[in-house]
Amino acid sequence: MVKVAICGGSGYTGAELMRILAQHPGAEVTAVTSERSAGKRVTDIFPHLFKYSGLVYESLNPEKLLPKADIFFLALPHAESQEAVDFFFSKGKKVIDLSADFRLSDPAVYEEWYKTPHHFQDTLKKAVYGLPELNRKAIRKARLIANPGCYPTSAILALYPAIADGLIDTDTIIVDSKSGTSGAGRKADVGVSFCEVNEGFRAYAVGSHRHTPEIEQELSRISGGPVMIDFTPHLVPMDRGIVTTAYAQLRKKISTKEALGYYKKRYAKEAFVIPLEEGIYPNAKHVRGSNYCVVGVKVNERTNTIVMASAIDNLVKGASGQAVQNMNIMLGLEENIALEGLPLCP
Amino acid sequence: MVKVAICGGSGYTGAELMRILAQHPGAEVTAVTSERSAGKRVTDIFPHLFKYSGLVYESLNPEKLLPKADIFFLALPHAESQEAVDFFFSKGKKVIDLSADFRLSDPAVYEEWYKTPHHFQDTLKKAVYGLPELNRKAIRKARLIANPGCYPTSAILALYPAIADGLIDTDTIIVDSKSGTSGAGRKADVGVSFCEVNEGFRAYAVGSHRHTPEIEQELSRISGGPVMIDFTPHLVPMDRGIVTTAYAQLRKKISTKEALGYYKKRYAKEAFVIPLEEGIYPNAKHVRGSNYCVVGVKVNERTNTIVMASAIDNLVKGASGQAVQNMNIMLGLEENIALEGLPLCP
Amino acid sequence: MVKVAICGGSGYTGAELMRILAQHPGAEVTAVTSERSAGKRVTDIFPHLFKYSGLVYESLNPEKLLPKADIFFLALPHAESQEAVDFFFSKGKKVIDLSADFRLSDPAVYEEWYKTPHHFQDTLKKAVYGLPELNRKAIRKARLIANPGCYPTSAILALYPAIADGLIDTDTIIVDSKSGTSGAGRKADVGVSFCEVNEGFRAYAVGSHRHTPEIEQELSRISGGPVMIDFTPHLVPMDRGIVTTAYAQLRKKISTKEALGYYKKRYAKEAFVIPLEEGIYPNAKHVRGSNYCVVGVKVNERTNTIVMASAIDNLVKGASGQAVQNMNIMLGLEENIALEGLPLCP
Amino acid sequence: MVKVAICGGSGYTGAELMRILAQHPGAEVTAVTSERSAGKRVTDIFPHLFKYSGLVYESLNPEKLLPKADIFFLALPHAESQEAVDFFFSKGKKVIDLSADFRLSDPAVYEEWYKTPHHFQDTLKKAVYGLPELNRKAIRKARLIANPGCYPTSAILALYPAIADGLIDTDTIIVDSKSGTSGAGRKADVGVSFCEVNEGFRAYAVGSHRHTPEIEQELSRISGGPVMIDFTPHLVPMDRGIVTTAYAQLRKKISTKEALGYYKKRYAKEAFVIPLEEGIYPNAKHVRGSNYCVVGVKVNERTNTIVMASAIDNLVKGASGQAVQNMNIMLGLEENIALEGLPLCP
Repeated sequence: MVKVAICGGSGYTGAELMRILAQHPGAEVTAVTSERSAGKRVTDIFPHLFKYSGLVYESLNPEKLLPKADIFFLALPHAESQEAVDFFFSKGKKVIDLSADFRLSDPAVYEEWYKTPHHFQDTLKKAVYGLPELNRKAIRKARLIANPGCYPTSAILALYPAIADGLIDTDTIIVDSKSGTSGAGRKADVGVSFCEVNEGFRAYAVGSHRHTPEIEQELSRISGGPVMIDFTPHLVPMDRGIVTTAYAQLRKKISTKEALGYYKKRYAKEAFVIPLEEGIYPNAKHVRGSNYCVVGVKVNERTNTIVMASAIDNLVKGASGQAVQNMNIMLGLEENIALEGLPLCP
Repeated sequence: MVKVAICGGSGYTGAELMRILAQHPGAEVTAVTSERSAGKRVTDIFPHLFKYSGLVYESLNPEKLLPKADIFFLALPHAESQEAVDFFFSKGKKVIDLSADFRLSDPAVYEEWYKTPHHFQDTLKKAVYGLPELNRKAIRKARLIANPGCYPTSAILALYPAIADGLIDTDTIIVDSKSGTSGAGRKADVGVSFCEVNEGFRAYAVGSHRHTPEIEQELSRISGGPVMIDFTPHLVPMDRGIVTTAYAQLRKKISTKEALGYYKKRYAKEAFVIPLEEGIYPNAKHVRGSNYCVVGVKVNERTNTIVMASAIDNLVKGASGQAVQNMNIMLGLEENIALEGLPLCP
Repeated sequence: MVKVAICGGSGYTGAELMRILAQHPGAEVTAVTSERSAGKRVTDIFPHLFKYSGLVYESLNPEKLLPKADIFFLALPHAESQEAVDFFFSKGKKVIDLSADFRLSDPAVYEEWYKTPHHFQDTLKKAVYGLPELNRKAIRKARLIANPGCYPTSAILALYPAIADGLIDTDTIIVDSKSGTSGAGRKADVGVSFCEVNEGFRAYAVGSHRHTPEIEQELSRISGGPVMIDFTPHLVPMDRGIVTTAYAQLRKKISTKEALGYYKKRYAKEAFVIPLEEGIYPNAKHVRGSNYCVVGVKVNERTNTIVMASAIDNLVKGASGQAVQNMNIMLGLEENIALEGLPLCP
Repeated sequence: MVKVAICGGSGYTGAELMRILAQHPGAEVTAVTSERSAGKRVTDIFPHLFKYSGLVYESLNPEKLLPKADIFFLALPHAESQEAVDFFFSKGKKVIDLSADFRLSDPAVYEEWYKTPHHFQDTLKKAVYGLPELNRKAIRKARLIANPGCYPTSAILALYPAIADGLIDTDTIIVDSKSGTSGAGRKADVGVSFCEVNEGFRAYAVGSHRHTPEIEQELSRISGGPVMIDFTPHLVPMDRGIVTTAYAQLRKKISTKEALGYYKKRYAKEAFVIPLEEGIYPNAKHVRGSNYCVVGVKVNERTNTIVMASAIDNLVKGASGQAVQNMNIMLGLEENIALEGLPLCP
């Protein structure tokens, strides 16, 4: 029985980690921290986590937390995560960081987009980008996982075969993503209040969202050369889900069926990535509450463009589910333990 | 490995049965029927049921279906279920009927409310009303379960301790229920189209909903005398969930805390019914996708009234989850197998 | 051209006043206050109020505001409104107060429910409860209007004919109300964030909501004797709308058609209250964005109960629309000026 | 008083025409047709259209309808509209067609995308594409208006200044649009049922939507040369609204501020098109129920791309509001009569 601590457990990704781990036969949550909610029971904040009525939030005290767990999930705000990650990692623990702090391998890029320096660059070098479909082997041997962002997970899985198989001109990539509101986190903010979000739809952070360099880094690795993208996130009046619609110019004429063939081949052994048949497109509703990602493609022969789309649950495959998937791989377990649940629909 | 057949599997309760049973280590869905969708794959209708891509809908042919399964779940329309239930039951199979056809023990009441006679009254006598919190012992021995309706499940669980412990005047019960839209089923109907339901709220079938006699029958059994209620269902712009707010006059002065004490005692051993602390009221969001029922009460001392509320997921505890719970009991398994998942929230 | 000032204009009722008054040919908003947003343009907070791009929020300085307007709408928080109302009223201005501060004629009741004393009891005596359907004559002569609460408007209009015509036993009234989320106001609060409200439904403030004594006061006036009610508000995942479902025992046998006859008669001359035909029940969607109230009734002959339901838009007939209706009456204008717009549906 | 007939008035655009025209002091709806609902009152289908309780749907009989009105709005299905338009036009009436039948000036393109020939090509030549911001002068003199599609309205208004002022390479245009569900019409179809749409998001008709040639035709006219686009529509779980996010390569380096300058200049005299300040992007919620269109742009200097976004209410500026705007222009009235209402938000 692996003992798990969750640092920053009063947000939606923390709650989702608890929900998923409650299904895990080989792991047990032994501690959960929250500064705002220290002293309160988990069920005071998340009444639906019935099985955690005995667990109480504590303040984040790394020294004190150290002996309580074998593996540490950190769901802290960006920049706040650095030091705690370094601490647990330096003490020999396994660490899965859900913040952005260890995702960008170039500290200068990190500083440019997150407006704060990276103080633990040696540890940063040890971090593995935790997208199993790309990095499974490295994850298996890693002790520090930078768990991917929600938009990057959706964008990379939509684009991976098209780039890896040389189908597209990587100078022409447009990534138009649409996210449910849980992606904004659990917070007291007029901007995410029901009456501001419901019956609305809008773009935000156009051309300036922090997930941009993360997507570019991974697409560049796949491509073998530098890739820059246009990335526009949008806010959808739904709780969960990200749908990404990506566009690029084709490098040669190809049919939708042929393009789909590349996707099916690349994802043939993946339990959680499901290419859809021609004419069917990813729907956030069909992955909700699950670790699945559905992908679909369509060639527009009139314009020689390919449209590549994906859907994930931003809190599961886009955060906590993928974190547990990474944990399973690190521990040498079956990758899908606690993640086998089918989506909740409707 | 128990073999399961689902008759009427192209609606939401059928799909939900498949979702839940996919988690069940001791059961396997071997056949699923649908008249509309015969010949299609399950995933053609329900793309989220990824694990059922190999299963194809067939027409309901009882003779042909008989050898394929040990236990039969019927999610057919009311009145259409009677004959199939009788057939499988008479052949010695275990049957769980999710329709209303075997819920009302008095065939005259059935005919009055459903406007069609009951043709299998001998079989009707063998049916056990499948609310485990009331009838667990009988369910254990039963071979035919009438799975409760969604509104009745929510109403009975909200009222059971108050009646059983003699707290209320049973001549004064008002049941005001609010249901998500999946309760209306999966159908092509302008009335349940997104633009008609979203941003709306309304009562329907006021004083005439068919779940009325079912609620009255069970409350009468608890009370030991005839109970009549006022029942008003409402449609809520959400996918899942029923919240019932019930009112009755108290028979003696009692505090909210004392009233809650009765609820805690009655439900002390129940895994799926959770009484809430004073001042907290059931929220459909906190049970979504799960088999849990939360209940809360409040005494209004000014008017000597008690307000009793409950929340369930209408497709799980209100239908398919409860059906699997009944199956587990009938088979002598742990009651919560495949039903342990925590609610999905947000 | 009447000059209008709005005190407290950065909430939803303030914004709705501006939206409605923009349609008014005889009124002009000359000033709007907000402490939080002083110095900002109205369109910085409410981008949809395109016609107000030239209007800037100012701090509430009653002396300075006095010469700017003939009529003052106050949409301030409860308790904060008292002093400003008294000031403008004492200076001879017309005042419409959308807070609860001048609704309860008994200051002791006010203090009991609002936990703060009433400091302007002489002015309180001058206030008229601004429900035109009950008090049109008094409103015409009034200089201070206490604009009714949203729940009270919906509850009183649902119950008025039944009480006034002696149909029901006023000791048995249950008021079960369901409100859209804008009723909670515009605020930074996790409890009203999209992910907490959407796909949820719950009761709150059971038996303790502050609108209870206001409803009771007005029902008592109609009845001619003291009336106490059970009142349970619920939160619906929609922006706007209140549906109230009220229950009471009938004093004599009566058909739904006869009951409806009383409603049609009482509301025959009312432009904004529309009784529905038998079998049709009020839907929040059918009044959205409008000043209309629809009412429907149903007699349950089995239990000798009558169900009385209403739907309003909480921000219009439940707040700002009714305020403008009151203004029109006070000014001797046609009652429906600026309020003629049909509901927005879907 | 102009007499107006609406052919095809049981859908959402028909209902919206009635809602808007009820505010029009110079127009009166004298007849409305529906095959499905002939003989029923308008309020039987649309209970919110209180002012139309005296109007009854009739079957579409052009001869009989002819004398009843001066101007005919047709909200019939595509292909069904052709003959009726031709009839009323040939009899000298003013006609505004909300279908696609007279939007594409090349009958071959019409036949290619709508899979049916155009039988009235002489009349087609007389039709003016009714986007006032582009064609106001022609509309003024026209007797037959082809009212633009909802997606085309949003796409063209987002792209017009960028193309007209030569900012972008018209070979690189991507149009990614997101529409509320009312765009699918009022119909009994599982695909638009609440439980299928709510909490979901998906693309549809990728690269094959029929509005593609309409957008291309108008962009080509603006550009002065042939323009082909990639167009992907998506379905958003909200009632109303279209947000379009369009992308193109810039032809020269330009700042967001400069780009915005072109938009402000092009739309300086337009009452209904509102360019937003830098950093603010169009939100469907801020135009709901109104005839306004908001536009915003952002230059991505890293990739030399410009993002151009717009938001409209698909039923108003995207259909019935624009139709009334066209009517006002044709009749020589103030363009904004009956269309001045501010958006309903929240």
